[in-house]
Amino acid sequence: MSQYRTFTANDAVEFARQYGQLADPQALVSADEIGDGNLNLVFKIRDRAGVSRVIVKQALPYVRCVGESWPLTLDRARIEAETLLIHGTLCPRHTVRVLHHDPVLAVMVQEDLSDHHIWRNELIKGHYYPLAVGQLAEYLAQTLFHTSDFYQAAQAKKAEVSRFTNPELCQITEDLFFTDPYHDHERNQFDDALLPQVTALRKDPALKLAVAGLKHRFLSKAEALLHGDIHSGSIFVGEGRLKAIDAEFGFYGPIGFDVGTALGNLLLNYCGLPGLLGPREAAAGREQRLQDVRELWLIFADRFLALCQQRSRDATLAMPGYAEQFLQQVWQDAVGYCGTELIRRTIGLAHVADLDSSADPEMRAECQSSALTLGRVLIVNAAQIEHVDALLARIRQHG
Amino acid sequence: MSQYRTFTANDAVEFARQYGQLADPQALVSADEIGDGNLNLVFKIRDRAGVSRVIVKQALPYVRCVGESWPLTLDRARIEAETLLIHGTLCPRHTVRVLHHDPVLAVMVQEDLSDHHIWRNELIKGHYYPLAVGQLAEYLAQTLFHTSDFYQAAQAKKAEVSRFTNPELCQITEDLFFTDPYHDHERNQFDDALLPQVTALRKDPALKLAVAGLKHRFLSKAEALLHGDIHSGSIFVGEGRLKAIDAEFGFYGPIGFDVGTALGNLLLNYCGLPGLLGPREAAAGREQRLQDVRELWLIFADRFLALCQQRSRDATLAMPGYAEQFLQQVWQDAVGYCGTELIRRTIGLAHVADLDSSADPEMRAECQSSALTLGRVLIVNAAQIEHVDALLARIRQHG
Repeated sequence: MSQYRTFTANDAVEFARQYGQLADPQALVSADEIGDGNLNLVFKIRDRAGVSRVIVKQALPYVRCVGESWPLTLDRARIEAETLLIHGTLCPRHTVRVLHHDPVLAVMVQEDLSDHHIWRNELIKGHYYPLAVGQLAEYLAQTLFHTSDFYQAAQAKKAEVSRFTNPELCQITEDLFFTDPYHDHERNQFDDALLPQVTALRKDPALKLAVAGLKHRFLSKAEALLHGDIHSGSIFVGEGRLKAIDAEFGFYGPIGFDVGTALGNLLLNYCGLPGLLGPREAAAGREQRLQDVRELWLIFADRFLALCQQRSRDATLAMPGYAEQFLQQVWQDAVGYCGTELIRRTIGLAHVADLDSSADPEMRAECQSSALTLGRVLIVNAAQIEHVDALLARIRQHG
Repeated sequence: MSQYRTFTANDAVEFARQYGQLADPQALVSADEIGDGNLNLVFKIRDRAGVSRVIVKQALPYVRCVGESWPLTLDRARIEAETLLIHGTLCPRHTVRVLHHDPVLAVMVQEDLSDHHIWRNELIKGHYYPLAVGQLAEYLAQTLFHTSDFYQAAQAKKAEVSRFTNPELCQITEDLFFTDPYHDHERNQFDDALLPQVTALRKDPALKLAVAGLKHRFLSKAEALLHGDIHSGSIFVGEGRLKAIDAEFGFYGPIGFDVGTALGNLLLNYCGLPGLLGPREAAAGREQRLQDVRELWLIFADRFLALCQQRSRDATLAMPGYAEQFLQQVWQDAVGYCGTELIRRTIGLAHVADLDSSADPEMRAECQSSALTLGRVLIVNAAQIEHVDALLARIRQHG
């Protein structure tokens, strides 16, 4: 049996030759480590012509961006690979293809997506991919419906809930989304300009009460096998194409969490655009993000409902009208989780370039401040924001 | 390692001698099999004087009341023993004591409770135990609070959710509570007199919609380690004493399910009393059951809130006001689950003597009919029944 060791570039090439499912494995000759995330080594494996052919990703036994002082289970590599394999069965068009994985080495070989771009970077540049939002909605509807109680047999789902128990990665979410930003914590990061607003958030009982409910539902609602971290940096786009990657946060949780994370990253871009583009481009981009938000929810809801009507296997849940009623709860959850994503990305540990990369410090502070304000409004008023047009109205008012 | 075999009376005596923690094990000489439940062998182990000293309970690999055609996992014996051990740590006064358990033999040795009585039988006879309801409330508050996210660390709780994954027994609940009574199914049992009402229930969209929500929450809300079957036949009472037994349905589910089952069994008795006692006694007993319902909820809520205030270990959930908000959801769930218990005990597979043992067929039909009516009212109107006094008003109106 293999034993864990940290891969060198040579190890990665060797592994890719063996498991990359290439017709010409010996063509692979070099590897670049390109991991820009927080948790893993990521190697691009290139052939003699310098063309990237396959990706080798290895989990490190600690949080990369913090160091060995924050150890982290390697089991997340198994969970990531197994989540992507399931999502890949349910929505092959929009899930990165896993070619091989080894749970002991915590290594996965996946398809190369060099002809795609990280969606966040494209959104920041103002590059618009007209099909992306609809494809993301389709990915969410397919993966979340088919792993929910509407479709999965109860006994099989219970076994899957155990298989995807992901305590350490969930703990990161529990801390970074629901705890740290609302307290003084060394992991938090923000400019001094935001201090008055941050201080106010921490003393806001209505906000903290609503966040408690969102955390509790994250801890206790096993509705479907979530991606668990479906932000715009976990999504590759190309012309007419979209692929979700990076599923190490996969677990059975509330469907609204995945939907809210996706919506939240569109709104982070909305808030950040004035600092990223010229005024006219930024205004057009913001208008487009609002339409993206609308489309993401409406297409997701439409596809999820259609699947409920056509493919529900639980006769009780298939009762006409129930899926609509359930989706209304998903919506309320999604609005709240969207708000927590806005806040934690602005003042917590893990920031986003949409908000932070403006060269103008005043503009940056203004963008960040609007993300905080909007996040708070969404969390506190989630129950009153009954549909997506009410959400757009709130965003226009506060964002 | 031991291998599963069905115990004879002699096996049970031998096992009790070995594991009964008695000072004089050789005094044990005989065993009576007294299992009147649906699933297990239960032996009373007696000494030479004929005194019952200890109980040996063994799970059978099938549903006893149906036969070998309905196989059932022996793992439920492990789950029962481990649930009782945890509940026994959290609330030793009101949990039957487990002296030993063997997961392979699916056998548990537990304390003898011959000086207690099954609560249901006492309620049927009109025997009142003034402390019982408060003690049951205390049992529910202690066990449910300490296994909830308010108290348990998130990582530890996730491991416990897996340990108490109980697919086959949950399936029984899923079928018998939420599916069978609302469809034509061979497992259902009811007198012809009820047929018009049963037919109406099966065509009632508002009812079936609400039942879908209750089933979905049963399938997906892992709030605390439930007893899972806390009806008045799973509870022993004596003067000033109460002990919960029979926890093979234990799993992490919605807190309102345990509370609703307990409330439901008080109301089954309320509905049945006119067929069991003379008019004046029945009227007094019914009034007492209403007070019991009130007291059960109010004491449970008070104790649960006090524990949240004093012992919450999750700083986010400890936010003042959150426990009250959460308890309101538990209440709404409990009202709904209470309604499903009323219906499934009247027309489903497993009936209760409170409703079925009246000698007068007309009176019996009337009692059963009132249980059905009340069950429906509670399920459909749960969201409008905002507190326990509103519940009592509905019961007086419909029960």
